[in-house]
Amino acid sequence: MIVHTQQVTFDEELRLKSGATLKPVTLAYETYGTLNADRSNTILICHALSGDAHVAGQHSPHDRKPGWWDDAVGPGKAFDTDRYFIVCSNVIGGCSGSTGPSSINPETGRPYGLSFPVVTVADMVEAQRWLIDALDIPSLLCVTGGSMGGMQALQWAVSYPDRVRSALVLASTACTSAQTIALNEVPRQAIYADPNWNEGDYYGKEPPNAGLAVARMIGHITYLSETSMREKFGRRLQERERYGYDFATEFEVESYLKYHGNRFTSRFDANSFLYITKAIDYFDLSLGRGDLSEAFADVKAKILVLSYSSDWLYPPEQSEELVRGLLRNGIDASYVEIKSDYGHDAFLLEVERLGELTRDFLAKVERETSGPAGPAQGAPTSTGEREEKVYPLASWAAKTRGTWRLAKVEQREIA
Amino acid sequence: MIVHTQQVTFDEELRLKSGATLKPVTLAYETYGTLNADRSNTILICHALSGDAHVAGQHSPHDRKPGWWDDAVGPGKAFDTDRYFIVCSNVIGGCSGSTGPSSINPETGRPYGLSFPVVTVADMVEAQRWLIDALDIPSLLCVTGGSMGGMQALQWAVSYPDRVRSALVLASTACTSAQTIALNEVPRQAIYADPNWNEGDYYGKEPPNAGLAVARMIGHITYLSETSMREKFGRRLQERERYGYDFATEFEVESYLKYHGNRFTSRFDANSFLYITKAIDYFDLSLGRGDLSEAFADVKAKILVLSYSSDWLYPPEQSEELVRGLLRNGIDASYVEIKSDYGHDAFLLEVERLGELTRDFLAKVERETSGPAGPAQGAPTSTGEREEKVYPLASWAAKTRGTWRLAKVEQREIA
Repeated sequence: MIVHTQQVTFDEELRLKSGATLKPVTLAYETYGTLNADRSNTILICHALSGDAHVAGQHSPHDRKPGWWDDAVGPGKAFDTDRYFIVCSNVIGGCSGSTGPSSINPETGRPYGLSFPVVTVADMVEAQRWLIDALDIPSLLCVTGGSMGGMQALQWAVSYPDRVRSALVLASTACTSAQTIALNEVPRQAIYADPNWNEGDYYGKEPPNAGLAVARMIGHITYLSETSMREKFGRRLQERERYGYDFATEFEVESYLKYHGNRFTSRFDANSFLYITKAIDYFDLSLGRGDLSEAFADVKAKILVLSYSSDWLYPPEQSEELVRGLLRNGIDASYVEIKSDYGHDAFLLEVERLGELTRDFLAKVERETSGPAGPAQGAPTSTGEREEKVYPLASWAAKTRGTWRLAKVEQREIA
Repeated sequence: MIVHTQQVTFDEELRLKSGATLKPVTLAYETYGTLNADRSNTILICHALSGDAHVAGQHSPHDRKPGWWDDAVGPGKAFDTDRYFIVCSNVIGGCSGSTGPSSINPETGRPYGLSFPVVTVADMVEAQRWLIDALDIPSLLCVTGGSMGGMQALQWAVSYPDRVRSALVLASTACTSAQTIALNEVPRQAIYADPNWNEGDYYGKEPPNAGLAVARMIGHITYLSETSMREKFGRRLQERERYGYDFATEFEVESYLKYHGNRFTSRFDANSFLYITKAIDYFDLSLGRGDLSEAFADVKAKILVLSYSSDWLYPPEQSEELVRGLLRNGIDASYVEIKSDYGHDAFLLEVERLGELTRDFLAKVERETSGPAGPAQGAPTSTGEREEKVYPLASWAAKTRGTWRLAKVEQREIA
C-alpha cells in the first residue's frame, strides 16, 4: 500500500484553550481506502506522543519501515481499508508536517521555538475538525487512538457530539495522572538540561540530541512491562561473554534503549516533545466541571474502551474510572481489559484481539447509528476462554465473549 | 541520640571481583547501642543506592534531619538500640566517607574519577567484613537492608555463612531485573549527557549537577507508586490557581521532583551514582551457577524476606523467586508480602509492621541460634486481619499471624 502525505493550510486564526491564537495552521495528513457515496465510512485515527500522519503503508516501494500502525490498518485488517476511509493527521505542536514549534513564525520569519503557543488536546482536535470539514465529511463513523490518541478520541466525542458516531479508546485515560505528569516532566528536564537546547532556540544549530535521547529512553521504559523486558532482554549481554567491569554498554536492554534513544533524535524535534508532553499533562476532561461524569453529559457516541493488563503508564484502573463516568451518563459504553504482557505498547501490538473487537464494534455502530436502534444481531466471533475483564453496557460485547454472566456481574461492580 | 561518623582505613589490597585491586580502603561507619559481653548482639544495617553510614540519630543537637532510617533504629524501635549493637557503614564506591571515585588515587595524587575500579555488591560486603573483623565481632546476629541493602544482606549470608546468624531482606532481589538495569542505565545516560561530567573528570570544577538531578528524578519516580503519587500530589498545582500554558513548574509533582533532584546534587557525587548503580546491575547471585538455588547451598542464616505490594522496582514476584530458591535448600526462610501503597519507599516507611516482624524474627534467631534448635515459643504479637501474603517455613511467622492455614497453603504454592 503506497500512500502520500498531504498537507492542508488554513489561513485562519485557531483560537487555543490558552487564549492565544495560531495562524496559519498547516496539517499533514494521510488517507487510506475510499470515502463512500454518503460520506459515512470515515475512521479518524489519532496518534500518540511520537506518532505522525503515516499510520500505515509505505511512502515508496523502497521504504524499509511501514507506518506506525501498519499491523492494524489495511485491507482486511482491524481498520479495514477495503471498507472504511481512514484519515490520520499529525497533531499541531508536532514536527511531521503540521504546524509546531519548528515551523516558521510568520511574525519573525524564524522558527517559533518557545514562542509557539502551548497547545492542548482540545486544540489538536479543533484543528483536526478543520481538516474533516475541509474533506467535507459530515460525521465520523469512528475516532480512535491509543495513549494520547485515545485522549483525542474522547475529546472528539465530548467536543463534537453530533459529528462522532463512535469512539474506540485504547490504553488511555480521561485525566492524566500524577505519575504520568512525573514521567513527562523528567524527560522535559533532560531536554532543558542539554545546553544545546538553549531555551528552545537551536534551529539551524546543534540540536539537544543528548537530552532528547535520554527523554526517549525514559519513555521507552514506560512503554514496556517488567515481564516483557525480562522476556525480551533478561540479563543477556550484548557482544560480550562476561561482565566488562566498565561503563560500556553491555546489557542488551541498555543497547536497546540507547539505540532507540539515538534513533529518535533523527526524526523528532525536542521542542515538539516538550509541547506534546505538556498537552498530555493538561488533559483532564473533568477540568472546570464537578467530576468526570459531567464531562460526558452531551456525548452521543458509542464508546469502546480497551485497556491492557500490564500497562502501568495508563493502567486499567484509569480506563475503569473512565468507563464508570460514561456509564453514569447512560452512554453506550463497553470495556475490555485485554490480558497482555506487552505493557503500554500492547495497544500497538495486540492487533489480533483488537481486530476481533473492532470488527464487532464497528458493525454494531454501523447498524445502530445508521438505522433504527435495536438489539445487537452480530454472531459471536470468539467463544474461547480468555482471562479478560469485560464490562459491557450493550449486549454485543457479552455476546462476542460468551461470558454474559461474568459480564453482568462485572458491570454491576463498575457501574 | 547523638552519633558520630567514624572512619577506619585498611592499608591492604582489597581484591575485587573484576580482578582489580583497591588500596587503601577507608570505610565510614556509625555504631549505636552497646556490644554485649559475648559480642553476639550485632546487627549490621546495609544502605541502599543513595544512603550512607548515618542510619539514625543526629550528628549534633542542631541537626535538622536525623539519619535515613531513624524511624526504625533507636531505643525501643524495630532495631532496638537498647538491646542490639547496630553498625552501619558507607559502601565502597560511595561518597560519604568511604573510598570511592571522589577519593584521592594514591598513584596520581588526584581524585580517581573513572580510574576508580568498578565494584560489585560482593566487593562492598568484603570491605564490610574487614570492618566487622576490625571491630572484633565474630558473627553477626543479623544483617539487614532494603533495596541494594537487601542485596548486601543476601551476599553476606552467601559469602560468609559461618558469620551470619540471620538476614532480613527488604524490598530487594537475588538477581537484578532487566527493568531495573534499564532504570539505572537511563539515569547514567543523563549524567553522561551533561558536558560537565567530562568523562568523570570534574573534581574541582563545575560538577554535572544537571545530569545528576535528572538521574535522581527518574529514581524518585521509581520509589513511589501510582497510588502514592495520586494521593500525595494528584493534579494539584503549585502556587498557581490555573494552568499557565507555559513550561514553568506548575504541578506539585513536578515541583517535588525538581526540589529533590536539585537537593540531591548537594550531597551526592555523580560518579558514585554511576559506580553504585553499576554494582546493582551486576548483582546476580546465580551468576556462574546453574540456578539461584545453587547459590544458597551453603547458607546457614535464617532469612526473613519482606516485599511490598505496590513496589514495582523490586516487585513481590522477585522476592517470591528468592524465597523459592532458599526453601529448595532447606533454609529456614520466611516471607511476608506487606500490603502498602508506598511503592519501593515502603521499606523505609512501613516501620510499624517492620517492628512487629523484626522483634519476632530476632527473638527467634536469638533463641534458636544461641541454644539448641527447637520449636518456636514466641507468643503471637498480632492477630488482626491483614491482607498480607505469608509464606513461612518455620512456624513462628504463621503464629504471629494467626493465619496458619493460609500460610500453609501459600507455602505449598511457592515451594
